[in-house]
Amino acid sequence: LPLSIPASDIRKLAIIMVGLPARGKSFIARHVARYMAWRGHSTRIFNVGNYRRVMYGSDKPHTFFDPKNPEAAAARKMCARKALEDMTQWLTSEGDSIQIAIYDATNSTKERRAWLKKACDELGVRSMFIESVCRDHRIVDANVRATKIFSPDYVGKDPEQAISDFLHRIKWYEESYEEIEEDDTSYVKIIDVGKKVVVNNVYGYLPTRVVFFCMNMRVSARPIYITRHGQSEYNALGKIGGNSGLTELGKQYAQNLSKFLHDDILRSHPHLSIWTSTLRRTIQTAKAIGRPFLQWGSLDEIEAGEANGMTYEEMAQKLPHDFEERKRNKLCYRYPRGESYQDLILRLDPVVMELQRQEHAVLVVAHQAVLRVLFAYLTERPHHECPNLNIPLHTVIKLTPMAYGCEVKYYPLDDNIPATASMDHGK
Amino acid sequence: LPLSIPASDIRKLAIIMVGLPARGKSFIARHVARYMAWRGHSTRIFNVGNYRRVMYGSDKPHTFFDPKNPEAAAARKMCARKALEDMTQWLTSEGDSIQIAIYDATNSTKERRAWLKKACDELGVRSMFIESVCRDHRIVDANVRATKIFSPDYVGKDPEQAISDFLHRIKWYEESYEEIEEDDTSYVKIIDVGKKVVVNNVYGYLPTRVVFFCMNMRVSARPIYITRHGQSEYNALGKIGGNSGLTELGKQYAQNLSKFLHDDILRSHPHLSIWTSTLRRTIQTAKAIGRPFLQWGSLDEIEAGEANGMTYEEMAQKLPHDFEERKRNKLCYRYPRGESYQDLILRLDPVVMELQRQEHAVLVVAHQAVLRVLFAYLTERPHHECPNLNIPLHTVIKLTPMAYGCEVKYYPLDDNIPATASMDHGK
Ligand SMILES: Nc1ncnc2c1ncn2[C@@H]1O[C@H](COP(=O)(O)OP(=O)(O)OP(=O)(O)O)[C@@H](O)[C@H]1O
Ligand SMILES: Nc1ncnc2c1ncn2[C@@H]1O[C@H](COP(=O)(O)OP(=O)(O)OP(=O)(O)O)[C@@H](O)[C@H]1O
Ligand SMILES: [Mg+2]
Ligand SMILES: [Mg+2]
Repeated sequence: LPLSIPASDIRKLAIIMVGLPARGKSFIARHVARYMAWRGHSTRIFNVGNYRRVMYGSDKPHTFFDPKNPEAAAARKMCARKALEDMTQWLTSEGDSIQIAIYDATNSTKERRAWLKKACDELGVRSMFIESVCRDHRIVDANVRATKIFSPDYVGKDPEQAISDFLHRIKWYEESYEEIEEDDTSYVKIIDVGKKVVVNNVYGYLPTRVVFFCMNMRVSARPIYITRHGQSEYNALGKIGGNSGLTELGKQYAQNLSKFLHDDILRSHPHLSIWTSTLRRTIQTAKAIGRPFLQWGSLDEIEAGEANGMTYEEMAQKLPHDFEERKRNKLCYRYPRGESYQDLILRLDPVVMELQRQEHAVLVVAHQAVLRVLFAYLTERPHHECPNLNIPLHTVIKLTPMAYGCEVKYYPLDDNIPATASMDHGK
Repeated sequence: LPLSIPASDIRKLAIIMVGLPARGKSFIARHVARYMAWRGHSTRIFNVGNYRRVMYGSDKPHTFFDPKNPEAAAARKMCARKALEDMTQWLTSEGDSIQIAIYDATNSTKERRAWLKKACDELGVRSMFIESVCRDHRIVDANVRATKIFSPDYVGKDPEQAISDFLHRIKWYEESYEEIEEDDTSYVKIIDVGKKVVVNNVYGYLPTRVVFFCMNMRVSARPIYITRHGQSEYNALGKIGGNSGLTELGKQYAQNLSKFLHDDILRSHPHLSIWTSTLRRTIQTAKAIGRPFLQWGSLDEIEAGEANGMTYEEMAQKLPHDFEERKRNKLCYRYPRGESYQDLILRLDPVVMELQRQEHAVLVVAHQAVLRVLFAYLTERPHHECPNLNIPLHTVIKLTPMAYGCEVKYYPLDDNIPATASMDHGK
């Protein structure tokens, strides 16, 4: 990445989740992991619940979580130890490169946390706790009802029985739960889904990014709509970059998009915000909708530098070395005096933060490379796939975040567009 | 600014400082104000202490701050009211544009804070409190000794008497101090210079930026060194942009810079980090030093787009409209397919955050426009002056943050460089 992290800064980070069951620990863990992986860091989650299911089966009743049940307690400690072992091993497996491990379990006692911190200290790995606390009990109830009946622990069980069992499980943990207040450790405490956040002893580049991300995280499931601008003159000529206006086909798409928004989207999402880049083709596209929109320089297309205005054929002729290099490693390839996909990821970081923060639906009218990067983030695609994702022209893509994952729907709004027109930057 | 803030988001923000005397309230206020002003927002501090000095004189002994002294309490309330009035008036004076007011006083009781919040609510202005708390008393002692003897309240006084009087003043405030814990208000509580931070009920783009900035703020006075690359081939030809290497003169500067670092700077700052852009001329310059350095795309020179590779004379001929436009408003002027200074400010925001976070000295080897933007931030120059600041070639500038302001020292390392060579991008 263009911003390498100073050698003196933290390169190995163990994030340790803390909290009673159904506080969103796994939700937060997955979101942090997705964000860090998207930024290009090696990231892995170690979920102790999964170890338990593999090692002891997934059909354990709530009494398995009774701290006064010594056999079960020993079994659960064994899972914790195995997960820690694997984490330790993984964190020492990739030499000096940046690695972020997330240890996902309740870790609800001081003792357990001291044990984990000690293991990290001995390894020379920075540890940082993320605790989720709900003072408002309605949040927990809603979480249990919304997610726990689908847990692998309750496959084939009656939902009401599952809920009742899970609430018992929570009770067992409550007996020994100690909120984190260890002043000498790094921690973030997220109270009532971020209404209040306490940050203690957090220093360093990576930990600071994680905290900032957590502070911007929302759980509401508002959709994000993305679309490329209508066909531009450069699209039609197969030229890279530029700042051309829309063709007749492109203008027609702007009309279709407007109709689609007014007929469909705006009814259910009257507070929808519209964001464009600062280039003519996205502005022209959004203008047709007849609503205010934000122009955002961070959403401008990948800068093609010296290849700007060329067709790919010309680029192959005039910049043959570049052309080959780009084919070989499109993620890292940087246009001469232009940008790479990795540059684009850093440039789009504030956009991603803003998308996280939004409480209402958003429509992003932008460009193929830019939307690939956003799409990769939202749908959690592996880093290296990002430059080859297909973002067809004249199509709205609806992305709805789910508790785990993201629903993707395509709305092609034009039958006439030649298939090749969706291929610029796509080769 | 390219990122306009959604119309629905907060456009008027009143930041209200909270804390006992000598907790760094004015320090934080000035830093937040500087950052927001640099981003281009209209920002003003209302310091109640200044109102007191103007309205009642600056020679008041500590008994003036005794809450049981009714006359003095009434006088102090009068100052608070006058400052609030002025703030209210200012916040309604610039129509719909973004405005950030900072109300700097102890505001150490619940009652006082409720009074201020109510005034903001009635005005339709979002209020947000920033409290500084020191649990570690050594911090306060050091602050009093370092800054209060220079306070306008103690001009001509014996330092030991000043300190003793000020410590008495603190005692009076301590009698009625109530830490902020009002759950229904927006606040950031900074404990022990950021060791711990509590963020409550903070939503919206501007408040989130303020919080993130506060979390990255350091008070250590490590210097920041900035220098442009050595003279490049394009510099010598008077051409804009490009990615040329160093001339012989430029290479000589790289040597001089290296010598200067090893002979002078590195002795007192052995942990110095070196940052460059990703362009050849800064990399070549930094390489001569023989220490590891970070390449950072955000530090690349302003993108001149279609004017790239032209001389200013050519630009005047080929892009006459642009040439005039740039002369007229260099801050907002955006090169066709390139960037404006305002774009640059947004691009450099993460760099500024990183600079804030650093505990050790940093040397930034970059470019004229980029360094202008950083220099403007560090020395608190008005937004509109930024594009015309003079950053001479072949000169190291040392910037040392002081409690209030920044010390600037120039180290020209080359007698031979023709004066005009420092003029690219400078016209
Ligand atoms: N900060 C948060 N506080 C409370 N709930 C949250 C938070 N973030 C996400 N959630 C919600 O939590 C639910 C998911 O719960 P999740 O499975 O992540 O809990 P968990 O703490 O991992 O539980 P368990 O201990 O059983 O593994 C989702 O419905 C999500 O909306
Ligand atoms: N978060 C902080 N906590 C404690 N001290 C700080 C903090 N930030 C800056 N300082 C230090 O505080 C000192 C400046 O004090 P400052 O005048 O700003 O205090 P104040 O709270 O405004 O006092 P007063 O109530 O007298 O106006 C500086 O020396 C600075 O290093
Ligand atoms: Mg879980
Ligand atoms: Mg002050």
